[in-house]
Amino acid sequence: MSHLPEHLLVGYRNFMKGRYAAESERYVSLAREGQAPETMLIACCDSRSAPETIFDSGPGELFVLRNVGNLIPPFEPDQEFHSTSAALEFAVDVLKVKNIVIMGHGRCGGIRAALAQGGKPLKPGDFIGKWMSLIHTAAAAVASTSVMTATERETALERISVRYSLNNLRTFPQIKAREEAGELTLYGAWFDISAGELWAMNRETGDFERPSLD
Amino acid sequence: MSHLPEHLLVGYRNFMKGRYAAESERYVSLAREGQAPETMLIACCDSRSAPETIFDSGPGELFVLRNVGNLIPPFEPDQEFHSTSAALEFAVDVLKVKNIVIMGHGRCGGIRAALAQGGKPLKPGDFIGKWMSLIHTAAAAVASTSVMTATERETALERISVRYSLNNLRTFPQIKAREEAGELTLYGAWFDISAGELWAMNRETGDFERPSLD
Amino acid sequence: MSHLPEHLLVGYRNFMKGRYAAESERYVSLAREGQAPETMLIACCDSRSAPETIFDSGPGELFVLRNVGNLIPPFEPDQEFHSTSAALEFAVDVLKVKNIVIMGHGRCGGIRAALAQGGKPLKPGDFIGKWMSLIHTAAAAVASTSVMTATERETALERISVRYSLNNLRTFPQIKAREEAGELTLYGAWFDISAGELWAMNRETGDFERPSLD
Amino acid sequence: MSHLPEHLLVGYRNFMKGRYAAESERYVSLAREGQAPETMLIACCDSRSAPETIFDSGPGELFVLRNVGNLIPPFEPDQEFHSTSAALEFAVDVLKVKNIVIMGHGRCGGIRAALAQGGKPLKPGDFIGKWMSLIHTAAAAVASTSVMTATERETALERISVRYSLNNLRTFPQIKAREEAGELTLYGAWFDISAGELWAMNRETGDFERPSLD
Repeated sequence: MSHLPEHLLVGYRNFMKGRYAAESERYVSLAREGQAPETMLIACCDSRSAPETIFDSGPGELFVLRNVGNLIPPFEPDQEFHSTSAALEFAVDVLKVKNIVIMGHGRCGGIRAALAQGGKPLKPGDFIGKWMSLIHTAAAAVASTSVMTATERETALERISVRYSLNNLRTFPQIKAREEAGELTLYGAWFDISAGELWAMNRETGDFERPSLD
Repeated sequence: MSHLPEHLLVGYRNFMKGRYAAESERYVSLAREGQAPETMLIACCDSRSAPETIFDSGPGELFVLRNVGNLIPPFEPDQEFHSTSAALEFAVDVLKVKNIVIMGHGRCGGIRAALAQGGKPLKPGDFIGKWMSLIHTAAAAVASTSVMTATERETALERISVRYSLNNLRTFPQIKAREEAGELTLYGAWFDISAGELWAMNRETGDFERPSLD
Repeated sequence: MSHLPEHLLVGYRNFMKGRYAAESERYVSLAREGQAPETMLIACCDSRSAPETIFDSGPGELFVLRNVGNLIPPFEPDQEFHSTSAALEFAVDVLKVKNIVIMGHGRCGGIRAALAQGGKPLKPGDFIGKWMSLIHTAAAAVASTSVMTATERETALERISVRYSLNNLRTFPQIKAREEAGELTLYGAWFDISAGELWAMNRETGDFERPSLD
Repeated sequence: MSHLPEHLLVGYRNFMKGRYAAESERYVSLAREGQAPETMLIACCDSRSAPETIFDSGPGELFVLRNVGNLIPPFEPDQEFHSTSAALEFAVDVLKVKNIVIMGHGRCGGIRAALAQGGKPLKPGDFIGKWMSLIHTAAAAVASTSVMTATERETALERISVRYSLNNLRTFPQIKAREEAGELTLYGAWFDISAGELWAMNRETGDFERPSLD
């Protein structure tokens, strides 16, 4: 009986012979001195949207929260268990990151589910439905836009939800305060796996644009 | 005004010239056919614990949930927003993954916070404290073991919390059902960045052991 | 009637044809000039924990005390027969060793016995119980940590007992004096036979770490 | 600051590349199945008298007690900490060894100390004197034998002390019982490093003889 799936063991062996062997000093130093990432990246669980791959990031570079649909709920200081809020608090108050990037992506199953249900919260016990209902107003508006194709509606809601989550980030008092003090910058991005296209949100207009890569 | 942090743009350029150029067919195919990962991996947000790096995983291989301390709360079918439960539901009910791996890691800031508070839930508005209080009973037991060093207590709690979260996974009816039907296997792992050490949980005893890599 | 077990005679013949033949000058010289080992090594009687094997040591290199659980009792200048104290006195006052290393090991039967009895001293005539009760406070603390597996509790106590014995070494006046004068260094180590893993105690933190072997 | 003496790290590296690499299956199996040595060997701490070297023994073969002068005190079921008795109890009652071998050696510093003090117990705090006073009657007798050379007196007392300790072994009820039941055999041996000479005690006469090695 193996204690890990075989494909992970194969991958780990490659890692140790390759990347770890090449960068072991950096790993040892990160262990000794602790992490100090400048950027928090919020992405989807989707297997085609790994931030460390897309941004070719090394160890210690990105503090990464991943949930379905890369959503941020609004600030709610109650007694519930909020994994998203705990991660934000750790990034902002403890690590004092300089950047938070929310990255949506194409062909997102969570967004598709939100559109399919037309923005209505689902029955109790349907965790995806409940979770995606965070954007149900926007989903309802987009779902009714019958002149757009299905793919256009998905892309639209994927980008709307990034802007929606950026707004929710600003409901956290310490995020708002640090942004106003110029100590923290909030960014939006959207990635599509097919052509490897990365789009960055224009922070003045909210539009998504291809960044210049020169 | 740049619309993305400079280090991400640099990394994205590397990705496009390197990995994407080499594997573009796989990316196009993953976009066309959708994701079908066999493994869900639950890891910490920590910047030194990226699953795709440690397991040298390609696009489409891992469905990844990342939260502080890689914790799974118990099943609670209420009306709250449960990002963790939504991700589990997506992985199990929609993607029908064959494996779920919970990977803890050394030097975990969330675990350290849980030990520092001695297992007591913190005041409202302290999201890290509230979130980590999921393991407060274990944290209290370990925190009182004064004959262990601080690092030994952390390592112990990091591994205990993996076992705790594996138990909570089994409180989700569909996970329990699929595991009993032999359609899903649950795994535990622990990674320490310094020496690149990966430990796999022995599924019979709960102990963490170095996997044979031959 | 043979006067030695056959396996020892076979081994001795191998020794004479192999190692002794190759190093006979060193043996002759060690006989003529006496021993002058720089290092005293305190290890368990366990048949899987032979210091000369693990450290590939030649004749004259290690002054070796072996008892169950590699324990050092505190300094007690009474009229009893103290084999451990006599060995320390010989190593420090007569041989003037520069290093004392206490090496614990995995799967230690003595430690297991200490945990099984929950730290309570046993009845008179139970020598293992009485001897291992030297660490009964630590054993009781570890034994009650039910969130750890049996193996995790054993490993924890194996390492705790090395630190405990190092502290007891310092209750011997001449050891304390020579250490403070910079003439003697005290070390802790832990070996596990399965993967041949050696861990060295960090002398500042008390943690056990894999030594770099480069 | 290194956490182990350099000569031990060098030796450990040799062990891993050499013996461990060649015998790793045996090590793994010994970890999984536990130790089951047939022979307990009681030897001196002296750096020139390592049983695993002299008998070319592999892992798992010898359960080894080492103290100054390879002495066994008589059975004393009191409340003191008896490291020697604990080791005997473990070997006989737990491991159920078939053989116990007491091996004295030439040029033994403990024996020399016993002769120098003429068999008189020393002042409190002199642990070597107190420990070696176990054989003070024999030491006094030999010390007064002025027609023997110093080396002859040492060799004589080294061998007398092996017989004395063999007798003490028989004061332990379970050792006496198992020997009488034919389940345990007691042996004496004496090794001199210079010429690599091993002598075995004739169990009928008590004489030390060179064993036939053919």
